[in-house]
Order: sequence, then structure tokens, then C-alpha cells
Amino acid sequence: MMYVNIGKLPKLAFNRKVAIITNNKVAGLWLSALLNKISANQVSIITIKDGEEFKNLATIEEILNSMFNEKLDRKSMVIALGGGVVSDMAGFAASIYQRGIDFINIPTTLLAQVDASVGGKTGVNNAYGKNLIGAFHQPRAVYCDASFLSTLNEREISAGIAEAIKMAVMFDKDFFNFFAEHDLKSTEELEYLIERCVELKAEVVAKDEKESGIRSVLNYGHTFAHVIENETNYKSFLHGEAVGIGMNMANELALKLGFISEAEKNLIRDTLRKFGIPTEYKVKNPNEFYNAFFLDKKSSNNKIKFILPNGIGGFEIKGDVPKSVLIEVLEKFS
Amino acid sequence: MMYVNIGKLPKLAFNRKVAIITNNKVAGLWLSALLNKISANQVSIITIKDGEEFKNLATIEEILNSMFNEKLDRKSMVIALGGGVVSDMAGFAASIYQRGIDFINIPTTLLAQVDASVGGKTGVNNAYGKNLIGAFHQPRAVYCDASFLSTLNEREISAGIAEAIKMAVMFDKDFFNFFAEHDLKSTEELEYLIERCVELKAEVVAKDEKESGIRSVLNYGHTFAHVIENETNYKSFLHGEAVGIGMNMANELALKLGFISEAEKNLIRDTLRKFGIPTEYKVKNPNEFYNAFFLDKKSSNNKIKFILPNGIGGFEIKGDVPKSVLIEVLEKFS
Repeated sequence: MMYVNIGKLPKLAFNRKVAIITNNKVAGLWLSALLNKISANQVSIITIKDGEEFKNLATIEEILNSMFNEKLDRKSMVIALGGGVVSDMAGFAASIYQRGIDFINIPTTLLAQVDASVGGKTGVNNAYGKNLIGAFHQPRAVYCDASFLSTLNEREISAGIAEAIKMAVMFDKDFFNFFAEHDLKSTEELEYLIERCVELKAEVVAKDEKESGIRSVLNYGHTFAHVIENETNYKSFLHGEAVGIGMNMANELALKLGFISEAEKNLIRDTLRKFGIPTEYKVKNPNEFYNAFFLDKKSSNNKIKFILPNGIGGFEIKGDVPKSVLIEVLEKFS
Repeated sequence: MMYVNIGKLPKLAFNRKVAIITNNKVAGLWLSALLNKISANQVSIITIKDGEEFKNLATIEEILNSMFNEKLDRKSMVIALGGGVVSDMAGFAASIYQRGIDFINIPTTLLAQVDASVGGKTGVNNAYGKNLIGAFHQPRAVYCDASFLSTLNEREISAGIAEAIKMAVMFDKDFFNFFAEHDLKSTEELEYLIERCVELKAEVVAKDEKESGIRSVLNYGHTFAHVIENETNYKSFLHGEAVGIGMNMANELALKLGFISEAEKNLIRDTLRKFGIPTEYKVKNPNEFYNAFFLDKKSSNNKIKFILPNGIGGFEIKGDVPKSVLIEVLEKFS
């Protein structure tokens, strides 16, 4: 089982070579703090450019070349320091370096702390879409230190909270109530939020690492979000923001199919809004939006599964939603 | 457990999309024979250039793009038709396409039938060396049809026999005797050879998929072979031929350390020669040859482990061979 540490980053001692993979921006903010904590046989720093547009195989090849240049061996350790893009790429590079070496995640965004850093999904984008190339490669350990969050802006915090609310709606009504009762301004509140998300996610991943069943529940909101991100060229919304909108759209579908009440739909929407998470999106062409569902990598054999809440704290995987129903839902947003 | 079929290629029916990955040369020889056996929801053909020099990440990206272009999904199946280069690349592409889809190996060389197609090592070369980037990804099934071997030349057959003799020397004295008693000209003999190699390899891989222990025994001869292949730019010897020389060099070391007798060393060498496998190589500079050992990806923390026969049919993993002893061995070949 993967080790997760929530709280101040402890001292890290390695009896092997390590390579820290990070981006220019995070390096400026946190690299020296991390270096102060690390002792190892050799410490190499590999920096990549900041941004989703560099999340591709070409950057992976650059990372791998740097790793060979530093003579990392099969016992060496990769440390990812950054948000989801850094951990997805560092993890993927580690997974194919000499057919796989260990890596550790030190996420510096709330989104990565509650979601991306745990679960072993690694990979890159290509011309055909997001995260279409990659591997399942579990990190040896994840260190979530809430003090890294001090340099994030409000939108970045909101985007992380959106994924946390997603976990709550799917799995845990008490956890959902926590969002109504707290404003998440204190380190203690954020640490509780991270801890509960990591617990819930670890439980799901342990049951279904390769996403053949229950793990797909973590995609609540994502089927809609991926279309929105594509339509807006990943420029208008942070991923967590698109997921916020996607959840609200999925809830509209859940309401129509009788899985939640109008009151529950509104409560989830208002909770998202409380934290500044967007819930609305103008669907220009419902038919085009519908067709874009089938480009998602999760739609095998031209079938799409929708992840829907079943009340608050429960879920439903729905595989046979008629096109007419989906068009009605999309028209509500048009 | 992986399914291995030795004998005539049976009819293959798939209730999903399949993509056959092969190279131009093999396609000309065997593609139509394979297509006659396959039924599936969709059959796509992806051809790559023939040759080790195209075994790199750029070709993997081309393969992946073709797969996306053909709209393969997570339930689709990749079929590798060709030698070790094709199966290494097709398997690696399958392992990172949407974080991993199934693949099947249909090896068309003896080397691939006895060795490369079984065991799940996939990957590509880069500027730093051979097979340095890759993944462990087990094929769902391997179909070894000896009739594919009819188009190979004698050197290609010899190269395959070299890897088979390697298995025999390490694990099975009776199997080693089989090489003394047969000339391997008939389909029946070749099928027995393939079957015994696959059995032995499957046993080893089942015990140690990721090569942390006994699987490294399969590298008998390879530590020397990799240096020879590098020094000759992969042009003078087929891989199996370099392994033949490497075994003979390893045996010289085993003799010096007392693991085999002079008679055993000579018997292995003469058995290799019987099948036209080279056993000699002119070491120009023993010191340079020695230093090149440390560039091998198996040498972690600057330590090299030598895989040596312990009698015929037994093995020894030796981790602390003094430089002076190795130089003496290399001087014997200089």
C-alpha cells in the first residue's frame, strides 16, 4: 500500500540517487525548501516548462534523456514536485525509464493533493486528446503539505475544492455536509479535506486500480467537463472548474432520471458556488456537444457510461441513456 | 497465465477491433496468411519500417497516432506480427495506449519464438542504449508457428538456436544434450525446441516478472554481448550471434572461477559452433571493454552481476568479480 503523509513535509533520506522533476514556476517557489529536506547519494534537478501545452511525448523524451544523462539506474527515485501536470509526466517518465523505477509525489496544488497525486494514473496528451498516452504506475509515497497552498490563487483553490466535493457527493454525505459548515480558510480545514479525499480515493483505487469498475465513479462530472475543456481549448476553465460545471450538468441528468431530487441538485450547485466554482456553461449546439462525448477515451465500443449521484453520498453508473434525454439536458444549458 | 500455442496458427476470432502491427518485409511474406485466419469487428494494419534503427520513441508515436486514427478503444487488441523488434514496439505501444490495452504476439523469427515474444519485456532504444525505455506488459497470448521460419536464412536460424542453447545451459542438462543429438532441420525438432524454451522461460518469468532475481539468469552471455553489439554498432552480428560469443566469454570466466571444467566450456563452445553460431570476438582493448560493462542498464550503483553456468544445466549469479580477473578473461580474447 502506498504511503501518504498529510502535514509538514518531513526530512527525506534516500540511500540512492534521486531526480526531482518540477517546472520553472514551482522551482522558484519551493525547490530550495525541498532541497533542505532531502539527503541522497545524488540529487539531480530536471525542470520542464510550465503548462498543459507541454504535456506531451516530446517533453517525456527530454525528461528521459536528462535522467540518462544523470546516470540514474533502476534503483533511483524520481520525485515529482508540482501540480497534476508535473506528477502525471514525472510518473509516466518513471514508469518507462528502464521499464519502470520508483517515484514519489509532492503535490503543490490543492487539486493534485486531493486527486491527481494519488492513484497512479500517469501520462500525457496528444493531438487526439488529453491523457491518451500513459501508464498505471503507483507512487511509492505521496507527501501533501498544505503550506504549499499558500501561493495558489483563489481559482486554483476552488478548482481543488471542486474535486473534493465530487468525492463527497459520490461517497460520503457527512463529508458533503462539511463543505456547508466550513469556509476552508484554515490549514486545519484544508488538511482534513485532503485527508478525507485521499482516504476515499485510496479505497476506490485499491478495489479497482485499472478502472474496470468502481474507479470510473471518480469521473463524475468529467464526461461533460472533457467536452467543455475541448470546446474552450483548455483556456477558459481550470480542470476543476470544468468538473464543477460537469457535475451540475450530470446532476440535471440525474434529476431527469430520478436519482436525485430538485432540492439535492440545487444544494450541490449552491455548495459549488459557495466556493466560487462555476456551474454554468453555454452549450452552443447540443448535437455537437453530444457527438463529442464519443471522442472520450472512456467510451469503448461507442458506448458512454454516465456517472451520476444517487442521492447525496451515493452513485449510479448509467450506460444506456437515450440520446433524446441527453439532448434535453444539454438544451437546458443552451 | 499467458496462453502459448505452438503449431499451426489457428483461426482467431475477436469480438472487438484489432490492429495488426508489422513491418513492410514481414507484411509481404505473411500478412495475407494472417488475415485469412482473423475475424474481428474491425481489422487495421499498421506497418513500420524494418530494422533496429527505427526502434525508437518517434516510431512509437507514429504507431500510437495510427491507433488513434483507427479509433481503437480500451477493449481493442494489438497483434504483433514479426520478429523481436516488432513485438517489442507493438507491445510497448499497446502498454501506453490509453494506459494499456491487450496485445498478442505472433513471432515470425526463431529468436522471437524462443525468447522475445514471451515474458512481457517491451520497449525501444534511445541514444543512450538498447531497450532503455519501455514497460513490462505481458501478451495475452503467443502463437508460435514454425512454418513462418521457412523464409529465414541460416544466420537467423542460428541466432535463435543460440538463445535456446542459453536456456539449456542455465536450466536443463537433458535439453542441452538434445542439441548434440539433433540437427534441427525438421519442423518437429524446431517445435520441440520452441516448446521447451517457452516452458522454461514462462517458469522463470512467473517467479520473477520484473527481474529482481532469477529472471536475470536469462541474461547469460548478454553482459558481454551488449558491449560487442555496441562496439560493432549492431552491424556485424545478429543479437543471437553476439549472445553466442558472450556465452563463450562468460564460460571463460566461469572456468576461471571454478564453476565449470575446461571440458564443459569446450562442449558448450562446440555445440554453438555446430549450429554456425560464432563464439570468438577480437577484444581490441580489454580496459575499454571492461569500462563498457558499466553502461549496461543492469549495472545498478556501478555494480555488475555476471550470470555464469554452474556445470551444464545450473547457474550462478556472481556480483563481486575483481577487475583483474575480468581483464585476464578479456585478454584471452584479445
